[in-house]
Amino acid sequence: MKYYSYENFKNDVNILISQLKNSNIEAIIAIARGGLTLSHSVAEGLKIRDVQSIRTELYDSTCKRSNISIFGKCELKPYKRVLVLDDIADSGETLQTIMSNLKKDFPHIEFISATLFYKKTSIYKPNIWINEAKEWIDFFWESDYK
Amino acid sequence: MKYYSYENFKNDVNILISQLKNSNIEAIIAIARGGLTLSHSVAEGLKIRDVQSIRTELYDSTCKRSNISIFGKCELKPYKRVLVLDDIADSGETLQTIMSNLKKDFPHIEFISATLFYKKTSIYKPNIWINEAKEWIDFFWESDYK
Repeated sequence: MKYYSYENFKNDVNILISQLKNSNIEAIIAIARGGLTLSHSVAEGLKIRDVQSIRTELYDSTCKRSNISIFGKCELKPYKRVLVLDDIADSGETLQTIMSNLKKDFPHIEFISATLFYKKTSIYKPNIWINEAKEWIDFFWESDYK
Repeated sequence: MKYYSYENFKNDVNILISQLKNSNIEAIIAIARGGLTLSHSVAEGLKIRDVQSIRTELYDSTCKRSNISIFGKCELKPYKRVLVLDDIADSGETLQTIMSNLKKDFPHIEFISATLFYKKTSIYKPNIWINEAKEWIDFFWESDYK
């Protein structure tokens, strides 16, 4: 298990911001909860005021497949390019479901996905990811608050 | 100007979490952008999965009063008690507008507002606030990312 401190996060977010500086991102969708702190920081760095959030819930269905429900409606009509942020692409199911839903709902928008961590076994590969997750990540926002 | 570091934030958030531990909060509304990192941390500490976000925009109208538009629809129907979080009650206009709108839209829900900072001149006083803002606060999420 690796503790991912605020200092680690700060360094990675600044790398991510430098990669996105000229991308003409107009809004950010934070995947709650994991993507909230990341979205706040990236939005400040890129000077993007419009940050919206969506969240998912996993339901175990009777046929042994998990279903993902998405909550939160995005208001994205005037935009051309929107950034979707989450902490980690682990199984990748959340991101894959969200990205395919967003593309269906807003076919005229280009969505760019980015995460701090990406696991090679994820079924979804973000457009941008900073670190490969080779062990369990203990994010500071999960362990600094009790 | 006072730099508000992640360590300051971590201490304050844990105080806030301890005050809210037995409040039976079921969901959190983050006021974007300022309340996003705070909402993430408090949600983790209180083990609340449902974090939603709303944001406001200020328009200067011709009659010298500022108008606030709220973006983002909350899905709160089954809840009894919901926490609304922002970084600071400064002028208080954003919080006052949001709280009165939420109470109008969801009259059966008890909304509790909390901020990290409260300025005595704010027109809205949060139910819970941690520090009095006596000078300009330089939040780490505003200055750590460029």
